[in-house]
Amino acid sequence: MLRGDGVFETTLVVDGVPRDLAEHLARLAVSAAMIDLFLPAAPSWQEAVDAALAAGGLPAEASLRLIATRGPEHGGNPTCFVALGSVPASTAAQRSGASVLLLDRGFAGSEAAKAPWLLAGAKTLSYAVNMAAQRYARANGAADVIFVGSDGYVLEGPTATVVVADGRTLTTPPPDGILAGITVRRLFAAAGAAGWTVRDAVLTPADLSEAEGIWLVSSVRLLAPVVAVDGVARAAGPQHHELARLLDMPGF
Amino acid sequence: MLRGDGVFETTLVVDGVPRDLAEHLARLAVSAAMIDLFLPAAPSWQEAVDAALAAGGLPAEASLRLIATRGPEHGGNPTCFVALGSVPASTAAQRSGASVLLLDRGFAGSEAAKAPWLLAGAKTLSYAVNMAAQRYARANGAADVIFVGSDGYVLEGPTATVVVADGRTLTTPPPDGILAGITVRRLFAAAGAAGWTVRDAVLTPADLSEAEGIWLVSSVRLLAPVVAVDGVARAAGPQHHELARLLDMPGF
Repeated sequence: MLRGDGVFETTLVVDGVPRDLAEHLARLAVSAAMIDLFLPAAPSWQEAVDAALAAGGLPAEASLRLIATRGPEHGGNPTCFVALGSVPASTAAQRSGASVLLLDRGFAGSEAAKAPWLLAGAKTLSYAVNMAAQRYARANGAADVIFVGSDGYVLEGPTATVVVADGRTLTTPPPDGILAGITVRRLFAAAGAAGWTVRDAVLTPADLSEAEGIWLVSSVRLLAPVVAVDGVARAAGPQHHELARLLDMPGF
Repeated sequence: MLRGDGVFETTLVVDGVPRDLAEHLARLAVSAAMIDLFLPAAPSWQEAVDAALAAGGLPAEASLRLIATRGPEHGGNPTCFVALGSVPASTAAQRSGASVLLLDRGFAGSEAAKAPWLLAGAKTLSYAVNMAAQRYARANGAADVIFVGSDGYVLEGPTATVVVADGRTLTTPPPDGILAGITVRRLFAAAGAAGWTVRDAVLTPADLSEAEGIWLVSSVRLLAPVVAVDGVARAAGPQHHELARLLDMPGF
């Protein structure tokens, strides 16, 4: 943990049941492989999650974290644990609207994806830049951030995926150099089944300006409608309530 | 620590005495300010260092780490501690020669320096990319890495500063987007006093090829002469022993 040399996942626990746990365990394994970390198999994680949940006393919504670090510095097995906590108030508050700043991420997603040592798309414990970007936003009157690559394309938020909607078409940036969003996958599966068009496509800041709606999407935050970009207010997308309903549908 | 949201320093302890402790505490404070972390003042750190050293039983060389994390997730004071350990064998081995790969860092140092949220030049606990780059090097037959910016200029190693020598001129990359090296500063002060020319200047991979000598320089590693770049062997710089003598001179 002294080197941020580990991986993690966070998911929402609703009425004692973790959402999309299999998908989070699968993504944890992908992140771990990117840093050459060998993890216990899913049943061991499930056992730890069950033990944490068995303690009971949870609120209706909780946050579950799965954490794996490289372990002792000079060799040995990874150290793995789970942690249950409350949903941060600042995260829950975003569900009724988030103002964002567009900040330069310093690299292009497509270029970063070619250099495996840059760990773009791995969910590692090295989140200092993500945390610093959110602090920078708060210090400048916004709640969160959308990162833009040095090639001018929208990437992701520090802790969220970006989705835009125009009519019944949902678009998210291609996965190059960013984390593959589990909640977006769930949303897109449900929306696709309901007849929406869903797609990956590059987005520019101009595309964001012109979109009917923009959301930050993540497992605990769920859907945060963007209500200001770089200090310019905008309406929440009219699709918001229908998207929230789609995201809550069982079976996706 | 679950977010790599902290800062650290590492220095060499020789015969029970930490090297350049005041400089490391000063740099720790700079890193901390870059992530809006307020640290205890130097005397508190000194007290902790003294307590750790008082336990005794140290080898002739040891590694001292000063660590500060943001502390409890939902507010409160930073958590700060010191840790004493042995010098890793792989680090000590580099003193007799290190083979390196040149790897793309994904950003340009001068650009990163303009975006404070990217934390370029802060020594944070978010070192996963540095660790991944070193693993990538080892998996490809080298011992370490020299990062090159997307603008084609040499940056730094994952845990070291780069210095090149031609005759009695020492050059290190300008500080934009990289960590300000304490051991390089000591080396340059001693060399300057001895009549060498010392300077910051941009370096390209071609400049490395043409240089008489290249070193990775850091507090615990000291001087690691580069003996291969991207699989091409090269001689250690003829200045090596004189540089080692300069680095050991008291008063710098």
